Amino acid sequence: MEVATLRIGHRLVRDDRVTTHSALVARAFGCNKLYMSDVDTSIIHTVEKVANSWGRSEFLIEIYDNWKEVIKTWKKDGGKVIHLTMYGINVDDMIEAIRVEAKLLVVIGAKKVPRELFDIADMNIAVGNQPHSEIAALAVFLDRVFNGNELKKQFGTASYKIIPNLRGKNVECRSGDNRLNL
Amino acid sequence: MEVATLRIGHRLVRDDRVTTHSALVARAFGCNKLYMSDVDTSIIHTVEKVANSWGRSEFLIEIYDNWKEVIKTWKKDGGKVIHLTMYGINVDDMIEAIRVEAKLLVVIGAKKVPRELFDIADMNIAVGNQPHSEIAALAVFLDRVFNGNELKKQFGTASYKIIPNLRGKNVECRSGDNRLNL
Repeated sequence: MEVATLRIGHRLVRDDRVTTHSALVARAFGCNKLYMSDVDTSIIHTVEKVANSWGRSEFLIEIYDNWKEVIKTWKKDGGKVIHLTMYGINVDDMIEAIRVEAKLLVVIGAKKVPRELFDIADMNIAVGNQPHSEIAALAVFLDRVFNGNELKKQFGTASYKIIPNLRGKNVECRSGDNRLNL
Repeated sequence: MEVATLRIGHRLVRDDRVTTHSALVARAFGCNKLYMSDVDTSIIHTVEKVANSWGRSEFLIEIYDNWKEVIKTWKKDGGKVIHLTMYGINVDDMIEAIRVEAKLLVVIGAKKVPRELFDIADMNIAVGNQPHSEIAALAVFLDRVFNGNELKKQFGTASYKIIPNLRGKNVECRSGDNRLNL
């Protein structure tokens, strides 16, 4: 399945950290692409640094001018547009119908998204009907889509390899270039 | 089960939005309490406003002086301390052992947490071994602990009630005081 995330409504500076978290979640939880508006380019550098240390995936970031154009293109290509919102139908009531799709565009927004997004989306999906966080919503939604398998996904050509530990911290350095400050 | 979250390593201003997201996730995903250090009190007001609109739960915020004291007290009371970190054991390999506990203190940190936390914690648990977001980690971890049931949890005395909708947006105002800007 091809899954991309579209982040809309970024507020400069105030939302930089939240957008960085969204980007890292999109990458770690199996998205192929993140579309974001013209935000601080340090976010792209952060993701690049993470990929250098912890492994390449097919994940890409693309900057868009107009979110409606992104949605239009996805719809034309047969993609389903899923808007994550507390006003939607509970994810667990729709996940089986969602899993059979070939292409998903997952739309997440900052505090308030344009009203028309609710009508443009093929599905408004709620990760619970309580307000919380688009980062959390994206993670739990992708976790449902990939049925938990994304948490054991392997990433290629990493500089470091974690040896999972119940206590303590253990990392194997593969590249000989041990810049990781543990 | 009694579950609290302890957030450590908050950096003033820079992390305010992320801490707000963490607080809202802790509330929405079934925690009883969030311990945080002396951060911007607007975070407490945001959670209070959310509770007024979307319902009361038993969720409380407590400000701590020393995170080690919080952990010590929980351990003394028989609570298990779970540190969420990419260096830990995959959550899906430990969740059955975790679910039988009566009291959990879930520790999440900003970018870098003190090294000793890895040794003090009863379990270092990874929501995947890739770097992403403590907000996402908290949400997915709590979702595993409560087996998805937290997404349909009812909250008491809300001013508004969402009528879940696949398209569009539908909210019932219960209090007559319709200040919600839809």
